[in-house]
Amino acid sequence: MYKRDLVSITDYSLDELEALWTLADDIENHPRRYKSSCNNLKLATLFYEPSTRTRLSHESAMIELGGNVIGFSDAKASSASKGETVADTMKVMSCFADIIAIRHNLEGAAMVAAENSRVPVINAGDGGHSHPTQTLTDLYTIRKNFGRLDNLRIGFCGDLKYGRTVHSLIEAMLRYENVSFVMIAPDELKLPKGLKNNIIDAGAEFVETACLEDALPELDILYMTRIQRERFSDLSVYDRLAGTYILDKEKMQKAKEKMIVMHPLPRVDEISTDVDDDPRIQFFEQVMCGKIIRRALILDLIERGSEEPIRRWEDIDAEGECTNPKCITHHERGLKPKYKRSSNGSLLCAYCDCKIKNE
Amino acid sequence: MYKRDLVSITDYSLDELEALWTLADDIENHPRRYKSSCNNLKLATLFYEPSTRTRLSHESAMIELGGNVIGFSDAKASSASKGETVADTMKVMSCFADIIAIRHNLEGAAMVAAENSRVPVINAGDGGHSHPTQTLTDLYTIRKNFGRLDNLRIGFCGDLKYGRTVHSLIEAMLRYENVSFVMIAPDELKLPKGLKNNIIDAGAEFVETACLEDALPELDILYMTRIQRERFSDLSVYDRLAGTYILDKEKMQKAKEKMIVMHPLPRVDEISTDVDDDPRIQFFEQVMCGKIIRRALILDLIERGSEEPIRRWEDIDAEGECTNPKCITHHERGLKPKYKRSSNGSLLCAYCDCKIKNE
Amino acid sequence: MYKRDLVSITDYSLDELEALWTLADDIENHPRRYKSSCNNLKLATLFYEPSTRTRLSHESAMIELGGNVIGFSDAKASSASKGETVADTMKVMSCFADIIAIRHNLEGAAMVAAENSRVPVINAGDGGHSHPTQTLTDLYTIRKNFGRLDNLRIGFCGDLKYGRTVHSLIEAMLRYENVSFVMIAPDELKLPKGLKNNIIDAGAEFVETACLEDALPELDILYMTRIQRERFSDLSVYDRLAGTYILDKEKMQKAKEKMIVMHPLPRVDEISTDVDDDPRIQFFEQVMCGKIIRRALILDLIERGSEEPIRRWEDIDAEGECTNPKCITHHERGLKPKYKRSSNGSLLCAYCDCKIKNE
Repeated sequence: MYKRDLVSITDYSLDELEALWTLADDIENHPRRYKSSCNNLKLATLFYEPSTRTRLSHESAMIELGGNVIGFSDAKASSASKGETVADTMKVMSCFADIIAIRHNLEGAAMVAAENSRVPVINAGDGGHSHPTQTLTDLYTIRKNFGRLDNLRIGFCGDLKYGRTVHSLIEAMLRYENVSFVMIAPDELKLPKGLKNNIIDAGAEFVETACLEDALPELDILYMTRIQRERFSDLSVYDRLAGTYILDKEKMQKAKEKMIVMHPLPRVDEISTDVDDDPRIQFFEQVMCGKIIRRALILDLIERGSEEPIRRWEDIDAEGECTNPKCITHHERGLKPKYKRSSNGSLLCAYCDCKIKNE
Repeated sequence: MYKRDLVSITDYSLDELEALWTLADDIENHPRRYKSSCNNLKLATLFYEPSTRTRLSHESAMIELGGNVIGFSDAKASSASKGETVADTMKVMSCFADIIAIRHNLEGAAMVAAENSRVPVINAGDGGHSHPTQTLTDLYTIRKNFGRLDNLRIGFCGDLKYGRTVHSLIEAMLRYENVSFVMIAPDELKLPKGLKNNIIDAGAEFVETACLEDALPELDILYMTRIQRERFSDLSVYDRLAGTYILDKEKMQKAKEKMIVMHPLPRVDEISTDVDDDPRIQFFEQVMCGKIIRRALILDLIERGSEEPIRRWEDIDAEGECTNPKCITHHERGLKPKYKRSSNGSLLCAYCDCKIKNE
Repeated sequence: MYKRDLVSITDYSLDELEALWTLADDIENHPRRYKSSCNNLKLATLFYEPSTRTRLSHESAMIELGGNVIGFSDAKASSASKGETVADTMKVMSCFADIIAIRHNLEGAAMVAAENSRVPVINAGDGGHSHPTQTLTDLYTIRKNFGRLDNLRIGFCGDLKYGRTVHSLIEAMLRYENVSFVMIAPDELKLPKGLKNNIIDAGAEFVETACLEDALPELDILYMTRIQRERFSDLSVYDRLAGTYILDKEKMQKAKEKMIVMHPLPRVDEISTDVDDDPRIQFFEQVMCGKIIRRALILDLIERGSEEPIRRWEDIDAEGECTNPKCITHHERGLKPKYKRSSNGSLLCAYCDCKIKNE
């Protein structure tokens, strides 16, 4: 099965990403040239859990390329409820579609999907593991605003402990030169240690602070996320802190004139609506960028139908289960474990990137 | 954001409605001329509550114009469940679609949608408040049958107290000359006083009766609705009455030869299936009319992309909450109240048309 | 209402089936010739219960013919929940679509649909009654592999008592010459007596066995189905038996080189994944065949729009209710019973083929 997939953002090299931005710009500037590029082709959106924005972004992108869409938006409508494996479902679905976008609650599900589909697979989110089209969207938004992805100071604010979007964007930005990071979060929601070490190992500049107001003036980009009340064991802490991390008109006055504010959406109340008219607020433009980059991605994957697929595991003579209970290896019948080594040599599950037990 | 919307039937002037009927007739007579009118355009059907008929009518209309469809058919599949406001959702969705049809359970939601979307919005029903494409459908069906919308005697039968469809059609018919009304309902389900006064104020002829059989011979149009058992505090009253309001073969013999029977569907048992073959039964033709007029509406709204939008509120220096608990102003974060004055000078909520508290 | 439907596999004569295989082969060999055959036409998929595979197979087929799709994938989204009859829904839906595929939990629902739709209706499964597009798929898969539908030895393995797919394929294969049957099942799940008698009456060779391994060497086709644990009153019997009916690498060694294995999918564990690479495993090819034959079916039905519809009942002066509690006659308001005679003269319900009470 020759074809390329997007399971993880690292499936694309920096050069391939650069080509993708160029293609996206060209599609946006000359939409008519591409309006029939996917005529007679079908995208299947297989959403085992609902995510309207992500689903409709993919569907819009495909339709704007002249293609068609089939699929489901909820697991109850799928054969999963009848006990079918992801592997079998993908073998069936690749009889119907020319490209597949899958959203699944289990971590590593997208890799299983890619390995069993005859057609390109886009990971539209597999649990807390990975959501590479969101990262593509974020990178493309930054590049559109600054013309570059290096030499930037980016602040992340809010829930840095659990935020998958934040983790992925940090990892992606570490591939570019001279990016410095400011992590703005309360103690309860600070960046995980492992990721912090990755930043330090990469030699990138790194600051931690609890104060949004102080950090703002130096930033090129402020990436906001929502703080969930449920994350706090002591709710009085939450109530005291919450306001500190709300971006409003007053705080915006401290930011650079060319700074931009991003947000993966939906927002709840972490950004006051009274700043929506500020031109630095870019989260609805981010949605538009998401649609544009997905057009480029779909087209790129379809055109690379004869390439050798990415290999995501190593031939390691090992045994042992994945330590992640949400990993697909614990839920998919007949799925054999696959391994890889982390940079520091420890054995990882190739599906979800978590550690292997008793190794 | 220049563009027109259909939030309420009064968004269209009588002249604009006339132009819409003409366009609808032309589309129906020359479907091939219009089969590519919406090529490369997308309708989003955002249905926060299910309504298959209304949704598929819009979707069919768009497809017959050569357009495409994206969307969701149930709130659970939407970002609303993650706490996103209607305003934010519309800002996102108007990145994906060229025109939006929204169905929402809250009253006034369609106005919020229109004010936050960059693309035209069609109100496909906002709670008990308004359902203007149903009213368009009803008006177009009458006009197709009689060649006119004035000089008609129209009977409404069934639940006249709660029936949103009935209320909207009455308001719409009051804009035409010499329309007389016969209200056929049990005491429990009589027309609300306010609406009755509107009819009287407009100088239209108006009769109330409890007997369908007596009213039938004089009618040009009989508009049937369902009587819901739950509406009666004393169920024995329901059981005694129900049969009286069932239209059957025997009753149809008393009606004019050119009379037509309409129904917003679904019917339950208020119209006996043994009259379905009677040519005066027009409710399935009404469904067809609904699809045709929606084609005209979609095309019209898309072509009016550069017009000043309708302004639905007045600059009134007031305070006070809407008295309607189902109004969106009580549920949407960050939504400021907007006001307008009724013809008799009282202060109304601009979103749902209900009174403002303590004013 | 002139048009043809597919309510039951017997709606198509053997000659019509032959023409359908030829059309399917031609579409597969020359897809470009047919890629605009259904331009400007709409398929409605009305799925009162979810069935992703069957729905997407129809939708893919329609799109590959250049057509469009509307519909719903779950009953909750439909007007059925508001008490609308199948008959009324079909009258409405045939205003929107040019062809309809309906899936319903009630037996006989597809016949009601066909009788009330102005456009061709495809039965995509009506309860335990009939699922003719699955049977078409199975027949077409066999014909593609062997070039014929006669002179074959076909084994059915697993749940032969309740398996609708099995029953339909047996009835369909009985129309061809010199087909012999091997029924492989535990005592608890043997073929129903009535169907067994049909095979004997048709003069076809017929063997029953409890041992898959013994039966394998002689088979041209092995049709596997899932054994459901719930079917056994004594679970220890299930636990003892289950393994016997699992197809694995070892058992496959006993089969002919040109034998094929079919399965209606989804499989659970009745076929070990370690045989998936065996070229005799044909169930994913079966999915592909399902899409191809549905393209032919849709095209054929649309082109036969002026033919006299099939008559599925006889003018019998009878009274009496259907004995099948899952028959639509017990659930659809205003539906009059229709009768027919079985080959042995007993009175049957024309909708679901079950016996009539007290006759």
